[in-house]
Amino acid sequence: MSSVSELTLLVREFAQARDWERFHTPKNLAMALAGEVGELLAELQWLTPEQSATVMNDPELGPRVRAEMGDVTIYLVRLADVLGIDLVEAATDKLEDSARRYTVEAARGSAAKISD
Amino acid sequence: MSSVSELTLLVREFAQARDWERFHTPKNLAMALAGEVGELLAELQWLTPEQSATVMNDPELGPRVRAEMGDVTIYLVRLADVLGIDLVEAATDKLEDSARRYTVEAARGSAAKISD
Amino acid sequence: MSSVSELTLLVREFAQARDWERFHTPKNLAMALAGEVGELLAELQWLTPEQSATVMNDPELGPRVRAEMGDVTIYLVRLADVLGIDLVEAATDKLEDSARRYTVEAARGSAAKISD
Amino acid sequence: MSSVSELTLLVREFAQARDWERFHTPKNLAMALAGEVGELLAELQWLTPEQSATVMNDPELGPRVRAEMGDVTIYLVRLADVLGIDLVEAATDKLEDSARRYTVEAARGSAAKISD
Repeated sequence: MSSVSELTLLVREFAQARDWERFHTPKNLAMALAGEVGELLAELQWLTPEQSATVMNDPELGPRVRAEMGDVTIYLVRLADVLGIDLVEAATDKLEDSARRYTVEAARGSAAKISD
Repeated sequence: MSSVSELTLLVREFAQARDWERFHTPKNLAMALAGEVGELLAELQWLTPEQSATVMNDPELGPRVRAEMGDVTIYLVRLADVLGIDLVEAATDKLEDSARRYTVEAARGSAAKISD
Repeated sequence: MSSVSELTLLVREFAQARDWERFHTPKNLAMALAGEVGELLAELQWLTPEQSATVMNDPELGPRVRAEMGDVTIYLVRLADVLGIDLVEAATDKLEDSARRYTVEAARGSAAKISD
Repeated sequence: MSSVSELTLLVREFAQARDWERFHTPKNLAMALAGEVGELLAELQWLTPEQSATVMNDPELGPRVRAEMGDVTIYLVRLADVLGIDLVEAATDKLEDSARRYTVEAARGSAAKISD
């Protein structure tokens, strides 16, 4: 299994080999990321929350959701590479912020935001 | 620096400690992911592609873009955890699919899709 | 009550008076539209479908949802103006397409797409 | 040419005839709206801002963009119907708010937000 940094290199080489780097501005990649998230939403939109919880057991929907999650990850990793951001560090920093703002005591059962 | 699997555990513990697991259905988390991607778009929407390419050098915008990328990563990792999907594997599999469909020869300079 | 064409003129004048037309390319406005839809999702993301059905009765959430719907409409109308598209005509044409593809007999109870 | 209220009735009848009303919660329709906006972004994502400004002249892309705008409008109108919101009124109210916050003098040339 490869890591995020290995995946980042794979996606970068993929773009370079096809001469696509000039298309890969942060603005364009953010739009592409949003487009892929839109496709993910489309797979889940008519399901009840309960149905969504078992979607991976569905032989047709499960692989489609996994493929959309793969697409989202590809564009997120590519965007982070172009921006020079370490995704795991950025997420960890943000999680620490959220921990300060949503203490366990105050938040317990009353809200649902990990971050905002 | 922590890995995706370490981040996954951190986010899971964060949600468990606050009793937020019942809110974290795939459907709800996909909406939250889309909301965070919307905030990322909002930071980039009025920039030219050229301005977006140097956004991380901007002392005000740079940290905001990094924070939004952190938020997107948090919800993506949480959604993958709930779905039982390995993000890096799903992305790598999808990238291999794309390599078959967009060969270097055919794609060179003519398109920009890593995936779809 | 004003019509879509009156609203279109109001939004156009608003942008012209502030010298914002140069920012209002279709690409930028589509991103702004997506950003506003993201804010709308954020208002609904932790609600159950049942809670979402009565959200307008909530004295705090109701006005916020209405305001987000207003924002989405503003950017959609502005984007249509810049593109030279009649939104109601474009929607009506698309609905006729969908009626041919999803006949009442075939679709009854089995799906939920108005359009795709 | 029909108005928003006529379109609203057409879309409502379309959903009723297919027994799709039970799927059309605000939560589900907001996701569907976001999915359609994602498809719109996908049509514009690799274009330069300048290319996006003339996209309607492109014999292939123009009709696709128009169709996506139609889809977005259909779901927005349907969501407004289910929520009991008058879209044009909600947008006009929001525009008046924005006019107070972004005066012509302060905003001239310096920003680009119609609303937020």
